[in-house]
Amino acid sequence: MTDRPPEPDASLLNDLVAANRVLYAKGIVDGLGHISVRHDKNPSMYLLAAERAPALVTKDDIAIYDLDSNALTLKERRGYIERYIHGEIYKARPDVMSVIHCHAPSLVTFCVCQVPLKPLYHMSGFLGHGVGRFEAREAFGMTDMLISSPDMGRELAKSLGGHAVVLMRGHGATMAGASIKHTVFRAIYAALNATMQMDAMRLGDVTYLSDEEAAKATATNDKVVDRSWALWKAEAAGEV
Amino acid sequence: MTDRPPEPDASLLNDLVAANRVLYAKGIVDGLGHISVRHDKNPSMYLLAAERAPALVTKDDIAIYDLDSNALTLKERRGYIERYIHGEIYKARPDVMSVIHCHAPSLVTFCVCQVPLKPLYHMSGFLGHGVGRFEAREAFGMTDMLISSPDMGRELAKSLGGHAVVLMRGHGATMAGASIKHTVFRAIYAALNATMQMDAMRLGDVTYLSDEEAAKATATNDKVVDRSWALWKAEAAGEV
Amino acid sequence: MTDRPPEPDASLLNDLVAANRVLYAKGIVDGLGHISVRHDKNPSMYLLAAERAPALVTKDDIAIYDLDSNALTLKERRGYIERYIHGEIYKARPDVMSVIHCHAPSLVTFCVCQVPLKPLYHMSGFLGHGVGRFEAREAFGMTDMLISSPDMGRELAKSLGGHAVVLMRGHGATMAGASIKHTVFRAIYAALNATMQMDAMRLGDVTYLSDEEAAKATATNDKVVDRSWALWKAEAAGEV
Amino acid sequence: MTDRPPEPDASLLNDLVAANRVLYAKGIVDGLGHISVRHDKNPSMYLLAAERAPALVTKDDIAIYDLDSNALTLKERRGYIERYIHGEIYKARPDVMSVIHCHAPSLVTFCVCQVPLKPLYHMSGFLGHGVGRFEAREAFGMTDMLISSPDMGRELAKSLGGHAVVLMRGHGATMAGASIKHTVFRAIYAALNATMQMDAMRLGDVTYLSDEEAAKATATNDKVVDRSWALWKAEAAGEV
Repeated sequence: MTDRPPEPDASLLNDLVAANRVLYAKGIVDGLGHISVRHDKNPSMYLLAAERAPALVTKDDIAIYDLDSNALTLKERRGYIERYIHGEIYKARPDVMSVIHCHAPSLVTFCVCQVPLKPLYHMSGFLGHGVGRFEAREAFGMTDMLISSPDMGRELAKSLGGHAVVLMRGHGATMAGASIKHTVFRAIYAALNATMQMDAMRLGDVTYLSDEEAAKATATNDKVVDRSWALWKAEAAGEV
Repeated sequence: MTDRPPEPDASLLNDLVAANRVLYAKGIVDGLGHISVRHDKNPSMYLLAAERAPALVTKDDIAIYDLDSNALTLKERRGYIERYIHGEIYKARPDVMSVIHCHAPSLVTFCVCQVPLKPLYHMSGFLGHGVGRFEAREAFGMTDMLISSPDMGRELAKSLGGHAVVLMRGHGATMAGASIKHTVFRAIYAALNATMQMDAMRLGDVTYLSDEEAAKATATNDKVVDRSWALWKAEAAGEV
Repeated sequence: MTDRPPEPDASLLNDLVAANRVLYAKGIVDGLGHISVRHDKNPSMYLLAAERAPALVTKDDIAIYDLDSNALTLKERRGYIERYIHGEIYKARPDVMSVIHCHAPSLVTFCVCQVPLKPLYHMSGFLGHGVGRFEAREAFGMTDMLISSPDMGRELAKSLGGHAVVLMRGHGATMAGASIKHTVFRAIYAALNATMQMDAMRLGDVTYLSDEEAAKATATNDKVVDRSWALWKAEAAGEV
Repeated sequence: MTDRPPEPDASLLNDLVAANRVLYAKGIVDGLGHISVRHDKNPSMYLLAAERAPALVTKDDIAIYDLDSNALTLKERRGYIERYIHGEIYKARPDVMSVIHCHAPSLVTFCVCQVPLKPLYHMSGFLGHGVGRFEAREAFGMTDMLISSPDMGRELAKSLGGHAVVLMRGHGATMAGASIKHTVFRAIYAALNATMQMDAMRLGDVTYLSDEEAAKATATNDKVVDRSWALWKAEAAGEV
C-alpha cells in the first residue's frame, strides 16, 4: 500500500472524462484514440483511460500510469496498446501536461503526403513552429504502425521535438499541450486547419501566418481558451 | 444614474439572443465569433454579449456599449477583445443595424487566397457589389490578427467600405446589414456561397450573377427573409 | 360555394406534409424551396403550401391552386412567389404528379457550370435521359432569377421538356415525377449524384451508366421506392 | 416441420439487428443496402432481413435463407432482390461469416473510376491485398445493375475473389469478413479510406501502406474490434 499513487484532483479527473467526450463529439477520435493528463500530484505519473472507446469513458475507467507506461491502478484492465505515446512524451517534454493521439481524417490525409501543414489563421497559430513528422519505417521497418513499445514511443517523442503536433505516416497524429483544454484546442483546430488548407491550396496561392503572427496569435488564444472549453463541455453533455 | 442607457426593446433582445444560437447552429460561429445590434433607442449605442460562446449566450449576458466600445452595462464582465469591430462599423456606416464577426471555415479559406468571392446564385446577391479585403499587416505590421483597438476597428470599417462583407486575411469575416435577421442571412449565405464556389471553380467555367441580377435578387430576398428567420429560430430552439 | 374545390385524399395531404419535412431533413430545401402534388380529384388543380419554410409546414398550410397558380383556398395567405413553376409544369406534362423546386447546394454548383450532370449509378438512372437547362437571361434579360410569372413558368417547363430535372442557372433545380415519393427520390439522388460526380471527375475518367442501363435501373427503382419512403418519413418524424 | 431451420443464437440475431442500425448511423447504407450473417448452427444457411430499410429492421424482420438464397422462413415477405450477393459469396468463401452490400457515396465514386483504392493507414489495412472489381457488362450486357440472379451473384463472388471488398461499377460495394463486427469495421473504414484517399491524391504524392504493413495492421485491428463495436452499438442505440 505504500506504493499506492496519490489521488488526482477531482476536477482534473472530471476534465479528463469530459475531454474524452469532447474529442468524440468534435470528430477527432472515433472508437480509437485517447487523451491523457499528467498527474497533478506527481509529475512522474499520468492519467489515461483503460482500453475503451473515448465516448464511453467514465471516471471509473481512468487509470494511473508511471512514465514507463506501467499501470499503477486498474491493473486488471487491458490498457491501450499505444500508451507509450503518452509516457514517452511526458518524459521528453516536462512542459507538456496533456497528450492526445487520434486518427482525425483531415490529419491522416496530411500524414501520407509531404505537403507541410501550416497555419491559415490565428486559431491554428500553434502550427507556426511547424509540425513533427514520424515515419515508423525509419527505425522499425515494416510494422503494424502502432506505437506499441517504449522504444517506439521514444522515437515518436523525438519526432515531436518541441512542436505542438506530430504527424505519423500511415497512422494519425499526436498533440501535446500545457493542459487538457489547451491540447483539446490544438487537436480541434489542427484538424480544422488541415481541412481548410486542402481547400485553400486548390483555390490558389495561400498566404499563411508568419512565424511572428503565429506566435502572437497563440499567446492570445491561450488566454481565452476557457470560452471554447465551456462550449465544448456543454456540447459533449448534450446541453446545447 | 443619469447615464443609465435606455432599455432596448424586449423583442430586439430576444432576437439577438436567438441570433447567437442560430449562428452556432448553422456553423457560422463556434466557441468564438459574435453578433451585435445597434440600440433601437439610441443609435450611438449597440448591444453585444459579454465574453461568452455564442451558443451559451442568454439575455443576462447582453451588454450595452457606446460606439467607442466602452461597456455601459455589465461593466464587471470581460468583453470580447474584438468589440471594436462593431463600434467602428456602426460609426462609419449609419445604414448598418447589425454586425457579425466569424471564422466560418469556407470564408477563412477565401480570406487567405486572392480569388474573389462572387455570387453564384440569387441567395447571395448581396455579394454582387464585391467584398472588402482587410490585411492587418498593411497598417499594423505583425499582430495577433485580432481587431483589438479602435484604430484597427477603424481600418477594418474602411476595408468594409460600402460592402456587405469584408474578408480578413488569416482571420475570418465580418458582415453588416440592415437588421439582425438580414445580417444572419448574409453570414449563412456568404459561407454557403464560398463552399459552392470552390466546388464550381473546380468543375469548370463559372457563370456568376451579373451586377444587375445580384441587385435585383437582393431586393427580392430582403423582402422574404422572415420565412428563413422563422425556420432558423425554430432550429436553434430545437423545435424542428 | 359551387367553386369550392374538392377535398384531397387525407393520405395525399399527409404525404405532402411529410415530404416537406423529408426534403428539409435531407438538406434538399432550407428556408426556401417547395413541393407540390397534383390534386387527386381534379387534375387541373394542385396542392402547395402557402408561404412558409418547408420544415414548418403543417396540413393547415396546404392550399389548393388552379393550373394558372391562382389560390382556390387559403386566399388570405401569401403564396410562394415561384408557384408558377408548379402550375406551368402540370400544364405541360400530364404525366407529372409532383414537382419540387430547391436550391440544393450540389445542384446549384452544376447550374452555374456547363458540365453535364450524368448518372453515376443505378440510383440516379432518372438522369439518363439528360437534364434540362434554364437560362432566365435568354427570354427575360436581367431578372432577380425567380420564376415570378406564368410566362417564366412556361419557359421553365419548356426547358424541363421530357426530363426529370431542370437546372436553373444562378438559381437552383426543379424535379418532376409520377408521385410525391418518386419526386422526392429524384431530388435526393440528383443532389447526391451531383456531389459524387464532382468527386469522381477529379479522381479520373468516369464511366457513367449507358442510356439502357439508366432506363432499366429507373424501372427497377420505381418499384422499390416504398422502402426508402418509409425510412425518410421515419427520419423526418424523428423516429430513427 | 422436419425442414424447419435451427434457431440462431439470440446474440447473433441481436448483433445482426444492431449492425443494420450501425450501418445506417455511419452513413454506409441509406434506404437500401443490407447485411447478412452465416447461420451459427448451419453453415449452409444465412440470416438476412426481409425487404426493409436497414434502420427500421427488427428481430422480427430477420429471415433464414439457404445458400441458393431461397427463404426458409418469412416466406410470405418479399426478399431483397439482391440477396444472391450473400448466398453466392457464402458458397464461394467458407471463411466468410458476414456480408455487407452498400452504396456508400465515397465507394461509389471509386467504383466508376479506375483509380485503385489503397490503404492510407492502419485502419484500412484490409485493403492491402487490393480490392475486386465487378463490371456487370462483361457477362451480362446492359442490365439494371442489380445482382438479381444466382448467376450474377456467382460472377460477383468471382470478382470478390479472396479480397475483403469488391467495387461494383455504377452500383456500389460489397464487403466480406469473419464476423458481423469485422465486416462492419471493413465497411466503415473502406468508405472513410476512400474519402481520405480522394483528398490525399489531390494534395500530392501519397505513401500507402506496404503489403506487409497492411497485413500486420489488419492482424492487430482484428483483435481490438470490440472497442469500436461497443461504441457503434451505443451510437446506434442513441446512448452517446
